[in-house]
Amino acid sequence: MMRTRPLKVALLGCGVVGSEVARIMTTHAADLAARVGAPVELAGVAVRRLSKVREGIDPALVTTDATALVKRGDLDVVVEVIGGIEPARTLITTAFEHGASVVSANKALLAQDGAALHAAAGEHGRDLYYEAAVAGAIPLIRPLRESLAGDKVNRVLGIVNGTTNFILDKMDSTGAGYQEALDEATALGYAEADPTADVEGFDAAAKAAILAGIAFHTRVRLDDVYREGMTEVTAADFASARGMGCTIKLLAICERARDGGSVTARVHPAMIPLSHPLASVRGAYNAVFVESDAAGQLMFYGPGAGGSPTASAVLGDLVAVCRNRLGGATGPGESAYAALPVSPMGDVVTRYHISLDVADKPGVLAQVATVFSEHGVSIDTVRQQGKDGEASLVVVTHRASDAALTGTVEALRNLDTVRGVASIMRVEGE
Amino acid sequence: MMRTRPLKVALLGCGVVGSEVARIMTTHAADLAARVGAPVELAGVAVRRLSKVREGIDPALVTTDATALVKRGDLDVVVEVIGGIEPARTLITTAFEHGASVVSANKALLAQDGAALHAAAGEHGRDLYYEAAVAGAIPLIRPLRESLAGDKVNRVLGIVNGTTNFILDKMDSTGAGYQEALDEATALGYAEADPTADVEGFDAAAKAAILAGIAFHTRVRLDDVYREGMTEVTAADFASARGMGCTIKLLAICERARDGGSVTARVHPAMIPLSHPLASVRGAYNAVFVESDAAGQLMFYGPGAGGSPTASAVLGDLVAVCRNRLGGATGPGESAYAALPVSPMGDVVTRYHISLDVADKPGVLAQVATVFSEHGVSIDTVRQQGKDGEASLVVVTHRASDAALTGTVEALRNLDTVRGVASIMRVEGE
Repeated sequence: MMRTRPLKVALLGCGVVGSEVARIMTTHAADLAARVGAPVELAGVAVRRLSKVREGIDPALVTTDATALVKRGDLDVVVEVIGGIEPARTLITTAFEHGASVVSANKALLAQDGAALHAAAGEHGRDLYYEAAVAGAIPLIRPLRESLAGDKVNRVLGIVNGTTNFILDKMDSTGAGYQEALDEATALGYAEADPTADVEGFDAAAKAAILAGIAFHTRVRLDDVYREGMTEVTAADFASARGMGCTIKLLAICERARDGGSVTARVHPAMIPLSHPLASVRGAYNAVFVESDAAGQLMFYGPGAGGSPTASAVLGDLVAVCRNRLGGATGPGESAYAALPVSPMGDVVTRYHISLDVADKPGVLAQVATVFSEHGVSIDTVRQQGKDGEASLVVVTHRASDAALTGTVEALRNLDTVRGVASIMRVEGE
Repeated sequence: MMRTRPLKVALLGCGVVGSEVARIMTTHAADLAARVGAPVELAGVAVRRLSKVREGIDPALVTTDATALVKRGDLDVVVEVIGGIEPARTLITTAFEHGASVVSANKALLAQDGAALHAAAGEHGRDLYYEAAVAGAIPLIRPLRESLAGDKVNRVLGIVNGTTNFILDKMDSTGAGYQEALDEATALGYAEADPTADVEGFDAAAKAAILAGIAFHTRVRLDDVYREGMTEVTAADFASARGMGCTIKLLAICERARDGGSVTARVHPAMIPLSHPLASVRGAYNAVFVESDAAGQLMFYGPGAGGSPTASAVLGDLVAVCRNRLGGATGPGESAYAALPVSPMGDVVTRYHISLDVADKPGVLAQVATVFSEHGVSIDTVRQQGKDGEASLVVVTHRASDAALTGTVEALRNLDTVRGVASIMRVEGE
């Protein structure tokens, strides 16, 4: 049975994602109405500049006054696809105060102020949904928050940034260096003119904070996430990885400590075995691997960015929030009851692949091995290669804490026989 | 804020899945209470025989009278993990009549009577959730029903039966024949003593009906699903597949016709390119590939069966249904508004790989090619191999309707020069 009064939706932002949301709302209006149980009407679109022509959108709906739009008081849902912290934060809070639920794709804001925004939504009895904030079209927030609500998630391991995956995949498949692969990504539109947010891991770190928060029912803020970019990954690292049957990915890793008493969240390049399902995620695709007590190993794969895929996630949330409005209910809010401590990077336990440039003379290996041993880092394998008085040692360790590894590397740098530490790479997914 | 009155849950069935559901409800009671917002109490467990010892379950809760249990009138949720049509159907209907919502893992029942069960749930204002019915722990029903609610799904391509995937993977990796691989699957507990439901595709067909119904907002019943088992797949088929850069999987395929006006659902073995993400799904794992207008290509991967994984899906639903009870709401019910016609197999359009045993003499290829042409089936490639007066022709076609292909094969069988049709295999995922 169809209610006649339409649900009113305001759109904040009409760029790549927003224009696609508007387009689908218009062209698929009958489907959306059938799925929601009432017509869904685009009631206003806030933009920065009026000058741009927006095909298919009634010009009378377009305004530059986003604040007035969210204060109208008759809105059921506000869709925020502006991005960034302000004015998005104030607009969302104002929307809640004036009775609207909110669908957002804003990873940076959610990672920084998720708790406050959830509190505002709860205070006004409204929904805050943000499937599109992590891994674009891939259903991930909802499965973690709802499908796995009866399970205990122990680890989330994800490729959540398409730009860096494109670059690393290119380096892997062609032997290109970082700069060359970045240039190609830029030329093809996969990387922005200023790629910092992607290649330095800021974008992935925001997503890691959001995922860890939901997975562990614990507040994890952006500042809690250890972050290392992938600008220093070299063709030589890929060669080393291949020698171990691995490839290199920029991973967002959220883990529960083995004793269950704390969690960690981090973003850095890592070697993973070619047999791992994440190893075969190519190009700009995203994928997230989830390990839980009962379900075991799950993987979610798909396009992690782009106008259409992100719009798909936004619209899925929009339908859910509209249904909730009709039913006078709200969906699950923030779940942070576990309130586990977030441990620093030094507590993270994993394996390491370390390349050292060393003097090619007897006793070096023994010296190096002693340093590892003194710091409690157990060696799995060592490969020694020498030529012309120069030599390299490649050490792969057993599991050790990041603090122990850092101490080891510091001591190695102080050895006369170690000329340099060529690379340190974590080994994950084993 | 925690409500004090607990939500009462009855469990119908206490086998591999049920006992795991009970175990997690007990050991993770505090987590479940925090996530639901109220304690969740196991109020009764219906079993077939009382004699079996059920560790961790209070014997006072156990009964053989399932009917009396679901009629108690104080239950919030009934979890049905008995399987099969009756008595499950009557018990679920009775549960709705007495005010309970239902979580079920029963694919056969949902595929056969989903519409009637949804109607009963709706009539009584209760929920019917069944994430565990398809692909075990993999969140699939919820993403299709909710995350993609604003999108248009065009195709669902899935490995939804772990037993047959184990067998086919074994044949592929070891060169074993079907019987040998089945024997190993049986010995390892992946196949049941009577493997018919798995190897003849009945299990996958039930899942295809459920997936197609949700994906296309259209009622699709088990009888609407074309079904072909995988018992006739041979080592020679795998060799042919490899020759084409493919492997063979038993696929459940739900498709919207290109004109959008109808849908099809089918289960059969098919060749898929090794580069397709489904090709690398090994062992007893399941994976479902979804193509939609806006989201593009998504894949969901994980364990498709087993006590713990299935329990994870059941418990996710249980938490959602309990939350709905607390909020006085219900989740999305059946969505069949599109009511698209389900076309017969003859209308399915795909590519085919056909192996023919033919006489080794001039003119045979021309004769065969004429038959294809007369039936409107365009040939992509032909490979001819001859030895000792015998020869084989391997034909790969362009896209053609199943009806046209069937007519072609019939005519080929009537050619004097064609001694036999060794195999016909559809080619998907390109």
